[in-house]
Amino acid sequence: MISRRGLITGGAAAAAGALARRETPPVEPFHGTHQAGVATALQAHAVFLGFDLRRGTRKEAIVRLLQLLTDDAARLTQGRPALADTEPELAATPARLTVTFGFGPGLFEAAGVDSPVAPLPAFRTDRLEQRWSGGDLLVQVCADDALTVAHAVRMIVKDTRSFARVRWTQRGFHSGNRRNLMGQLEGTVNPVDLDRAVWIGQGALRGGTTMVLRRIRMRLETWDAADRVAREFTIGRRLDTGAPLTGTAERDTPDYERKNRLGFPVISEFAHIRRAHVADPGQRILRRPYNYDEGLTADGESDSGLLFASYQADIARQFVPIQRLLAEGDLLNEWITAIGSAVFAIPPGCAPGGWIGETLLT
Amino acid sequence: MISRRGLITGGAAAAAGALARRETPPVEPFHGTHQAGVATALQAHAVFLGFDLRRGTRKEAIVRLLQLLTDDAARLTQGRPALADTEPELAATPARLTVTFGFGPGLFEAAGVDSPVAPLPAFRTDRLEQRWSGGDLLVQVCADDALTVAHAVRMIVKDTRSFARVRWTQRGFHSGNRRNLMGQLEGTVNPVDLDRAVWIGQGALRGGTTMVLRRIRMRLETWDAADRVAREFTIGRRLDTGAPLTGTAERDTPDYERKNRLGFPVISEFAHIRRAHVADPGQRILRRPYNYDEGLTADGESDSGLLFASYQADIARQFVPIQRLLAEGDLLNEWITAIGSAVFAIPPGCAPGGWIGETLLT
Repeated sequence: MISRRGLITGGAAAAAGALARRETPPVEPFHGTHQAGVATALQAHAVFLGFDLRRGTRKEAIVRLLQLLTDDAARLTQGRPALADTEPELAATPARLTVTFGFGPGLFEAAGVDSPVAPLPAFRTDRLEQRWSGGDLLVQVCADDALTVAHAVRMIVKDTRSFARVRWTQRGFHSGNRRNLMGQLEGTVNPVDLDRAVWIGQGALRGGTTMVLRRIRMRLETWDAADRVAREFTIGRRLDTGAPLTGTAERDTPDYERKNRLGFPVISEFAHIRRAHVADPGQRILRRPYNYDEGLTADGESDSGLLFASYQADIARQFVPIQRLLAEGDLLNEWITAIGSAVFAIPPGCAPGGWIGETLLT
Repeated sequence: MISRRGLITGGAAAAAGALARRETPPVEPFHGTHQAGVATALQAHAVFLGFDLRRGTRKEAIVRLLQLLTDDAARLTQGRPALADTEPELAATPARLTVTFGFGPGLFEAAGVDSPVAPLPAFRTDRLEQRWSGGDLLVQVCADDALTVAHAVRMIVKDTRSFARVRWTQRGFHSGNRRNLMGQLEGTVNPVDLDRAVWIGQGALRGGTTMVLRRIRMRLETWDAADRVAREFTIGRRLDTGAPLTGTAERDTPDYERKNRLGFPVISEFAHIRRAHVADPGQRILRRPYNYDEGLTADGESDSGLLFASYQADIARQFVPIQRLLAEGDLLNEWITAIGSAVFAIPPGCAPGGWIGETLLT
C-alpha cells in the first residue's frame, strides 16, 4: 500500500523509473558502424514485426521506405517525435529504445539484388506455422517501457502501410532475473569476440550481421510434471544457480568428460547444454531471447515460450550446426518445439543523413 | 551500445532494476484490512483473469479454492514459492506483486449467498462482447516484472483448474509517464478520501470495495487523423501538459463556467473531462487504468485500448451516473467503445491464517 499522494502523483513506479533513468542512460545511439539492438543489453520489452512487401514493390520504393523508416528510427530512439507524429508526447520517453531492421530473401528478390541469406534447412523437430514464419522485412523494436514500444510500432506500421503489410507481430518480455518461463537462466554463454562471431568483416554486409528468429513453444504443463532431477538432467545445469552439473557456479566451465560412479557422463550426451555447446567462442551465436506468453489456448494449455533471436556472422557455419545437433538429440525437445522461423540480413548501421540498407541496395 | 561485459552479466536493465529495488521496497504487504492492488501505486504490468466456476461447484468447494488461492497469493507476493511451485526460482523476484480477488454475481449465486453486486445497466454506446465480459471470479495480478506476473498467473490457473475454467485473460501495461495510447495523461483526478470513496464502511464487505472492469477499444487510426485542436476540444485538456483548457498546469482546477469570445464554454458541454467530472471527492471513482495493445486485427486495424479498472464503494451511486453522462454525450465516444464489462465485489483483506472472502462466505 502507498500513500494517497503516491496514487495521485503516479507513485513509486514512476519514481523508480526516474531513478533508473538517472543511473542508466535511457538513450541508445542510433547512428554508428553497427545497428543498435544487437549488442545492446536486452531491454524489458520487444516487438518483432515481420512485413511482406506489397506486390510490385521494386527497388526504388523499397529505398524510399527504408529512408522513411530510418528517419523514424533515428528520431524516436533519441526521444524525438517521428515526422508527422500524431502523439509526439509518447516519443518523449525513449527508455533505451532501439529499432533494428532486417532484410529477408524476398526483399532482395524484389529489389533485384542477390540475397546474402537463405531460409534454414528443415529440422526434423520443427513444426513451423506460416503465420510465424518468413517475412520480407523485419523491424525489431525494443525498449524498457511498453508504451514506448507500442508508440514506435504504431508509427512504423503507419509509415510502412503503403509499401508492405504486417505478416506477423511477436511480442516478448525480458526479466531482470534472466530466467525464462521454464525457470532456466538465459544468456549464460554468449560470444566474447563480437567482431569474429557476430559482425561481418567484408562485403556489402560489412558491419552488419544475420539474424535467425525462432518462435519456440514450451509445453509448460508437462515440464511442470517432470521432477527436478529429470529437468536438471535434461538441461545439464542446476535450475537454482544455473551451474553446470559438474560445477557449483553459473559461469563454471562444464566438464563434459566427467563420469559418475556408474561410468556414465555426468552431463548426458543428450543434455541441452552439451548439444548447444560450441568450443570456439568465435563460432558462438549471440542470443537475445525474449519470453512470450499469450495466455491460454482454447484448450486451456499455455501458449508460451521463447522468441529466440540469434545473431551470427554466418548462419550456415554457426547457427545451422548447433540447431542440427539440438534437433538430433536434445532431451529438451520433449518440451520445446519451433513453431516459427525466419532469417534476415541485418545491414550495418548508417551515419547521420544515411539510411539503413544503403550499402546493399545502391 | 553497451560493453560486452554488460551483455554477459545481463546488462544495464538488470542493474537499473536492482537499483529501483533498493529504492522502492519491491514487496507489497499481503495481509491487512484491505486487499492490496487497489490503493497500490500502479505496477508496470497487469493480467486480469476472469474465471467461470465449473457446473456444480458449491460453497464448500469455493471456500477450499479461496483458501488455496489466498495461500498462493500470500506466498508469491512475499517472494516465496507457492506450495508445490514447480518453478520456485521464478517466485524470487516479487517486483511489487499484488494478487487481488473479486467475486462476480455468479460466485455468490453458486455459494447460495445474496450478491452485493449486480451487472451494470446497458449503456447505449456499449458494444459488449461476451468473450470480454462477465465472470464469476476475478484474479488481478500486477507487478513491475512481466515474468513475475506470468509465473503467478500460471500457479493460480493451475490451482484453479479443477474448480473453474478461464473465461478471459486481459493483459495490460502502465508507463511511468502515465500516458495512454491516445497520448492523454491518465490518473490526473483520483479520490483523495479513500475511506469515503472506495472502502466500504459496514456490512459483510466492510474493508472491501467494488470493481468495474471495462475493456475500452480505441480507434487509433481515426484519432490520429483528427487534428490537435479537435482532440484537445474533445478531451477538454491540452495533450502536452494535461492542463485543462482553462488552465496552464495539469492539476489546475478546470473552470467549467469560463466562456470564449463567442460566448461558448471554453471546456465544451460534451468534453470528456466535463462529462466525467464529479464535484464531491467522496463520490469519485478510483481509476487504475492499464493500456492494452494486441497488435493488429486481421483487417490491419490496431487492437488497442484501455483496461479501465474502477474501484468505488458503491457502483450505483458512483460509477453508473458518470458512465451514463459519458454515454449520453462524451465527444470521445467517436473514438472509444466499451467491448467488455464485468463487475466484482472486492472482499476485504485478511489476517495471517485467514482467507479472502471469509466475511462473505461463512
